[in-house]
Amino acid sequence: MKDNNESIRTIGEFNLIESIKEHFPVPAGVTGIGDDCAVLPQKSGRETLVTTDMLMEGVHFLMEDADPYDLGWKSAAVNISDIAAMGGVPVGTFLSFALPKTLTGAWVERFIEGYKAVSDLSGTPLLGGDTTSSLDRLCINVTVLGECQAGASRKRSAAVPGDLICTTGYLGDSAGGLQVILDEAAGRKEARTDDEKELVRRHYQPVPRVSEGVVLAGTEGVHAMMDISDGVGSDLRHILKASGVSAVIDVSSIPVSDELKRSAESRGWNVSELALNGGEDYELLFTISPEAERNLAVRHFVIGRITEGLNPGGVTWEGTDKEFKGFHHF
Amino acid sequence: MKDNNESIRTIGEFNLIESIKEHFPVPAGVTGIGDDCAVLPQKSGRETLVTTDMLMEGVHFLMEDADPYDLGWKSAAVNISDIAAMGGVPVGTFLSFALPKTLTGAWVERFIEGYKAVSDLSGTPLLGGDTTSSLDRLCINVTVLGECQAGASRKRSAAVPGDLICTTGYLGDSAGGLQVILDEAAGRKEARTDDEKELVRRHYQPVPRVSEGVVLAGTEGVHAMMDISDGVGSDLRHILKASGVSAVIDVSSIPVSDELKRSAESRGWNVSELALNGGEDYELLFTISPEAERNLAVRHFVIGRITEGLNPGGVTWEGTDKEFKGFHHF
Repeated sequence: MKDNNESIRTIGEFNLIESIKEHFPVPAGVTGIGDDCAVLPQKSGRETLVTTDMLMEGVHFLMEDADPYDLGWKSAAVNISDIAAMGGVPVGTFLSFALPKTLTGAWVERFIEGYKAVSDLSGTPLLGGDTTSSLDRLCINVTVLGECQAGASRKRSAAVPGDLICTTGYLGDSAGGLQVILDEAAGRKEARTDDEKELVRRHYQPVPRVSEGVVLAGTEGVHAMMDISDGVGSDLRHILKASGVSAVIDVSSIPVSDELKRSAESRGWNVSELALNGGEDYELLFTISPEAERNLAVRHFVIGRITEGLNPGGVTWEGTDKEFKGFHHF
Repeated sequence: MKDNNESIRTIGEFNLIESIKEHFPVPAGVTGIGDDCAVLPQKSGRETLVTTDMLMEGVHFLMEDADPYDLGWKSAAVNISDIAAMGGVPVGTFLSFALPKTLTGAWVERFIEGYKAVSDLSGTPLLGGDTTSSLDRLCINVTVLGECQAGASRKRSAAVPGDLICTTGYLGDSAGGLQVILDEAAGRKEARTDDEKELVRRHYQPVPRVSEGVVLAGTEGVHAMMDISDGVGSDLRHILKASGVSAVIDVSSIPVSDELKRSAESRGWNVSELALNGGEDYELLFTISPEAERNLAVRHFVIGRITEGLNPGGVTWEGTDKEFKGFHHF
């Protein structure tokens, strides 16, 4: 169970997640609340991975802004990414919809097309779901099942001192794309450059790193892993807290795309800010022993290292006097 | 994928379920859209069952009427019942919530208590989910995973001529309870009798027939199976259509509780109407060879038999001049 919205963790005096944990102790052998996926052992020595996410109109997206294709893409992508974050192979998705009567068939068809496009990238079939109606707002829930070899799934709690900290790709593109959209909403009129179009595309159509995740889960020496949804500044702290360790990040080594560099220069953005506080890149963030890193078969960028003990704050940011705390979407 | 709401199967000219089926062909060995659960083979010779259901405020429940305990109970129960309907053992549930800010912690706590009470009846842990916020209306999505031996899950399509048609329990109690509630909403002032209280409880707190389902799935000669959510008049037709057969139902043999009989007498209800058109009893409806039925270890009531060929209408109702078509909730 993820609580993407910190503010609803507690409702008045009531702590929802704590109450659920208290009522439902996790069975032996199962990973429950607190990682990217739940992990259930199968009899065969394999494991089932499960993740689920709800998207609500007005909170996660606005109907007047949302391209249904992009919304379909992202609904599937962020959940498939949670399977990738554990190193699993996605087996199938389940899509629940509450549809207001004002939605057109063309809208829903475009949604399904976007959902299918990213599902096809990782060969993930849609296997079921529920369709019902809503009085006004659209609500979407996606559940994804995945599988991996028993013991192969990579959790947040496995980082050890001496590990290198890596990402599978560039950071900040999605945040750059969002900045383009926000500037336009605030009145900016200039046409998007090709670079800016690409950043917007990466914001709306993130690609889950499924094959990378599978290779990483099959590599000895890869320890903790998660996907970057809230930005390194926030997500890395989940790994540190779960593992009881700290980290040093070399800010100058953060991988940034040429599109983002050029756009940042012309618009006066702070690149490190976007790359470390910006969320929704859906690259994998993982820790790995230096020996294993030398022969790693997956494209990756080393951005720092794990150090001993969980210090207050957890992260030392080298090469900057800034602090990075990630991005809260909602 | 179930489409509980027939009216949103098609949006204008667009058939949602057909479009999804077309975009996402079901992989070999998998049961996809069209049964109580999706069925996924595991490597071990077991099968994973998955079902998911979305409940939307204003469509499935009204906040001013809903007791959070009952809503929590029912949210879990109807999904666990889908696992029971295939003969599976529920392994875990996943609960997504979009919570409006007006909800109190006490409300959510009562919801979780009801959810837990019915989950505990079948030993089903809550293993994950998602909590987020909603601008106004509450939306709930529950996904349940189950398991069974490979080949043991009972589908709707397996009924054969000569089978007896059975239910695991009384029919119509839930519809009677709903009638009590509706009469009160329409202005009836009399206090509920003990019988009526019991019917209302059965409406709000159905008990999924998990152990019955497991025994039935382990019994040779049990063919088609599903749970009764829309009433025999509607649900039986799903089995007939999927199996290409017809049925004769002996209306006088429909099992009815004493509470319902007495309440119907004092209120002037038609018992057959409630028992066959009323939904949400969540008893199992199954077909079984007469030989297997003689030694069946599960409490059950024979209500008819499967006949050859799929006739128009499908069902012959013996002992009445009425037709029964079930109940559409939404």
